[in-house]
Amino acid sequence: MSDLTEIRDAARAFIAEREWQQFQDPKSVMLALVGEVGELAELLQWLPADEARALSREEPLHTRLAEEMSDVLVYLVGLADQCGVDLGESALAKIEASAAKHPAEETRGVAPQK
Amino acid sequence: MSDLTEIRDAARAFIAEREWQQFQDPKSVMLALVGEVGELAELLQWLPADEARALSREEPLHTRLAEEMSDVLVYLVGLADQCGVDLGESALAKIEASAAKHPAEETRGVAPQK
Amino acid sequence: MSDLTEIRDAARAFIAEREWQQFQDPKSVMLALVGEVGELAELLQWLPADEARALSREEPLHTRLAEEMSDVLVYLVGLADQCGVDLGESALAKIEASAAKHPAEETRGVAPQK
Amino acid sequence: MSDLTEIRDAARAFIAEREWQQFQDPKSVMLALVGEVGELAELLQWLPADEARALSREEPLHTRLAEEMSDVLVYLVGLADQCGVDLGESALAKIEASAAKHPAEETRGVAPQK
Repeated sequence: MSDLTEIRDAARAFIAEREWQQFQDPKSVMLALVGEVGELAELLQWLPADEARALSREEPLHTRLAEEMSDVLVYLVGLADQCGVDLGESALAKIEASAAKHPAEETRGVAPQK
Repeated sequence: MSDLTEIRDAARAFIAEREWQQFQDPKSVMLALVGEVGELAELLQWLPADEARALSREEPLHTRLAEEMSDVLVYLVGLADQCGVDLGESALAKIEASAAKHPAEETRGVAPQK
Repeated sequence: MSDLTEIRDAARAFIAEREWQQFQDPKSVMLALVGEVGELAELLQWLPADEARALSREEPLHTRLAEEMSDVLVYLVGLADQCGVDLGESALAKIEASAAKHPAEETRGVAPQK
Repeated sequence: MSDLTEIRDAARAFIAEREWQQFQDPKSVMLALVGEVGELAELLQWLPADEARALSREEPLHTRLAEEMSDVLVYLVGLADQCGVDLGESALAKIEASAAKHPAEETRGVAPQK
């Protein structure tokens, strides 16, 4: 089974057992996702930028990062579930679309633009 | 293959072909994730809360939501990759830990607390 | 004195006394702002949408909201300071520009669009 | 008049002229704030961390940063208004409380902790 499906099913069961489906409207789940994104940002905020990758692999930071990334993912999967989005399929299609939009030969070594 | 692994590999290839690895430090990827979370929030912000789930299934909103959720996921997978985190495994473990921390019998029907 | 200037000066003094200026690069302050936005979102996430305004005026939520909004503002003021932005002047100019862009007669009663 | 009060009053007038008060519930305004925080983050995301302060003062980035910071501030002021929070007073009180909580002599030169 795909792991996004497994996470979705585990999250669904967690919510159903607690009768929390009533709280899972998209705007509420979106705000919960924002809360977890904030907790993840807090773990990185004061790290020296050029040491962040190395420091992110040291404990206890590594485990805390994994936990907060997991929280973000679980709410993202839950939001997709509320909105009837197949997240795995969409993400792969989006990477393909981005590749077509930003040809490698035109973007090589140039910082992505907004 | 797990779909999170497939997304990670597709994102890695996308980045490598453009020689963008040099921009992928954790703080930069985190900010890019925040940018995508903002775009996702904008799609939901003015929807009436009690109609948001139904409206999220109508086009063109549905496709735009899928795209923005995908962007969030791709950057989250990329951040996990930078930090050496196995996102799928961590997320499943986190749901189990949350279940142990919030026993169903104590939390049934009560809004999750912060 | 304008209150945004007063907040900026108090934040500057707070940072200087702790020799924290070395950590105040724009990307770090931006991530700190995201962390506080997350804490603010967490206070609102599970409130019923149509009761949120009334509930936000009850204690202890009211005080916690004020604190988290303050944290967001202090980091926003700090970020503006790092980037040499006059936040008060810019915000007033931006509201004027928005008014010109979205004429009242064309937008009356219609949800703002993204 | 304090500038936060002036911004609040200008934002109130902008909203009233468009009959947008009906959309200004706290969760919606919070999501709009998140959207603007995302746009601000996007302007900073790929800047080299150690050049970001200098680059933020160059045009056209400087003006775009000022605009996005303004949007964040306007929604924050609007959210405070919905929740009956005096943002200027709260922020000054919060800085004082932080100073008491983190004595300068104990925190000098040490990165703030989460």
